Amino acid sequence: MPEEQLTVQDLSESELLARIFPRLNHSPSILLGPGDDAALVAAPDGRTLISIDTQTQDQDFRLVWNNGYRTSGYDVGWKAAAQNLSDINAMGGSATSLVVSLTMPPATAVDWVEAFADGLTAAIRALGAPDCSVAGGDLGSGREIAVTVAVVGTLSGMAPVLRSGARPGDVVAVAGTLGRAAAGWALLESNVPLGTLSAGLLGLIDNQCRPVPPLSAGPLAARAGASSMLDVSDGLLRDGGRLAAASNVVLDFDPVALKIHSLPLEPAAALLGEEAISWVLGGGEDHGLLATFPAGIQLPQGFTAIGSVQAVVEPPGSGVRIAGQAADTVGWDHFAD
Amino acid sequence: MPEEQLTVQDLSESELLARIFPRLNHSPSILLGPGDDAALVAAPDGRTLISIDTQTQDQDFRLVWNNGYRTSGYDVGWKAAAQNLSDINAMGGSATSLVVSLTMPPATAVDWVEAFADGLTAAIRALGAPDCSVAGGDLGSGREIAVTVAVVGTLSGMAPVLRSGARPGDVVAVAGTLGRAAAGWALLESNVPLGTLSAGLLGLIDNQCRPVPPLSAGPLAARAGASSMLDVSDGLLRDGGRLAAASNVVLDFDPVALKIHSLPLEPAAALLGEEAISWVLGGGEDHGLLATFPAGIQLPQGFTAIGSVQAVVEPPGSGVRIAGQAADTVGWDHFAD
Repeated sequence: MPEEQLTVQDLSESELLARIFPRLNHSPSILLGPGDDAALVAAPDGRTLISIDTQTQDQDFRLVWNNGYRTSGYDVGWKAAAQNLSDINAMGGSATSLVVSLTMPPATAVDWVEAFADGLTAAIRALGAPDCSVAGGDLGSGREIAVTVAVVGTLSGMAPVLRSGARPGDVVAVAGTLGRAAAGWALLESNVPLGTLSAGLLGLIDNQCRPVPPLSAGPLAARAGASSMLDVSDGLLRDGGRLAAASNVVLDFDPVALKIHSLPLEPAAALLGEEAISWVLGGGEDHGLLATFPAGIQLPQGFTAIGSVQAVVEPPGSGVRIAGQAADTVGWDHFAD
Repeated sequence: MPEEQLTVQDLSESELLARIFPRLNHSPSILLGPGDDAALVAAPDGRTLISIDTQTQDQDFRLVWNNGYRTSGYDVGWKAAAQNLSDINAMGGSATSLVVSLTMPPATAVDWVEAFADGLTAAIRALGAPDCSVAGGDLGSGREIAVTVAVVGTLSGMAPVLRSGARPGDVVAVAGTLGRAAAGWALLESNVPLGTLSAGLLGLIDNQCRPVPPLSAGPLAARAGASSMLDVSDGLLRDGGRLAAASNVVLDFDPVALKIHSLPLEPAAALLGEEAISWVLGGGEDHGLLATFPAGIQLPQGFTAIGSVQAVVEPPGSGVRIAGQAADTVGWDHFAD
């Protein structure tokens, strides 16, 4: 029987782990790796950043999408690493390790799990997190695939960049892409067959399945003096609203600057009969950075200005505007309609 | 409509978080708590322990058991904290923070989630982890409830106690209970109605649903010079076998010492027609500690000797024996039969 047909129920936990471990990279931050009840990771400045994120089958991805695309283990591993690395990036830090919990049905193919490990490693390398590797994990069974990654990282002695530091007069800037992952999601969910898509449109699906957060931009922003920052995981309006609320300011976006992000999405929007700007404003999962900088600071490499921070006028209070006009919050909420 | 009938789909994510946060404790280890993309936790000796564990509905617990017991959110929160705190304990460390990912169906009652938060906090306090609190988390929806907790902790400058350090001549000792959680599982899965159980038998169910790992014992063992340690989460034979393999030794258990753990389980065993000793040998989830100490060291408080470490004789190689006889490994494996 070809090895591709092995499923995880055919192996013991230790046999499965023995197939995963050789596929992981090793960074010097890991003082003690997998094999004991906990791993030990360097925290050179006496502090550690920590965050956690879960992806669940049929909520965050489909194994087979409406347009025929099949989510690979590689995709899920890549995305799990990317979205966690992005959370450290958004604080101005650098990731030092991941711990990974993988829950899956017993009938899951072993090669899916191996590809998952490959995806984790590939994302760590390709996105540029050289000090990071997988320090440990947990395997379990469930009715659906669920991946939870916790990430720890270091600020290298710097102060964290918070959501709450934006001040009137600051410049609003973004690094990375906006709306591409949402356009990819719309294509995946559409009735347009995968085989008919151009390379440009397939690239949008790549952004959804294997996002490319700009990992060098976070520490650069911190060093440049960013006054606030977060990663855009739930949409520019929603995440911008969170930053505005935490800072008690108004973020006013420049529609011309937003258009730079929506124009490349017009072919996909035309194909699907949707509005490209709604993906730019409402789409998350590109894991770009939204940051504010005091006026007069040269924006660090990778950032472009998309608006300005203004003082709150009551009413309507803190929030997001586009050229001074109210912008409805259309980003992702996990439970509410 | 009474508030008890609110479900998580009736609230936005921020509204749900606003109900959770006031129920969490706050420790000075948390330099920056929930609200940004990552939390910041003190790592005073420049290193941080990290581990991750998942509980999945119908794999690790049932919402309603065969005997009628209903698993509360409080139970799930308590157990999630306890099993993660135990992983830090097993290295000789003390936990400094938890990050918690809760995935649940949209129809989950809000009061279940509130009880979950209460259970986390209660376990942290009752088990004795005063420097630990929840630093952040993630909420998501899925078809089943799944809870993943990652824990970080400090060794306070000590070396970690590994699985690989046991040496022939060492004393084997345990802290905490053995087999009680497994007996509780058997009662929960049995046809004996919950309402007919004595207080003693109900106490076994408590050990399954709200385990009580001996959190002071881990750091005490490290300071006393334990040569190896792990927490018994998958059964004494299986976890003992892991320690024996990592150390390349034989652990020889004393049947008289094991009987001290099986005797209190005899009423449950008689009721269910099972063998109490099989729970002691094969049952995990009490999250007691299995450790080895060089001969002549006074065992730290909470530990009792249950055997000795012996040199490997080939064959049969490293492993676990009972009074010199082979012991079949009957502990828990997540996938294999």
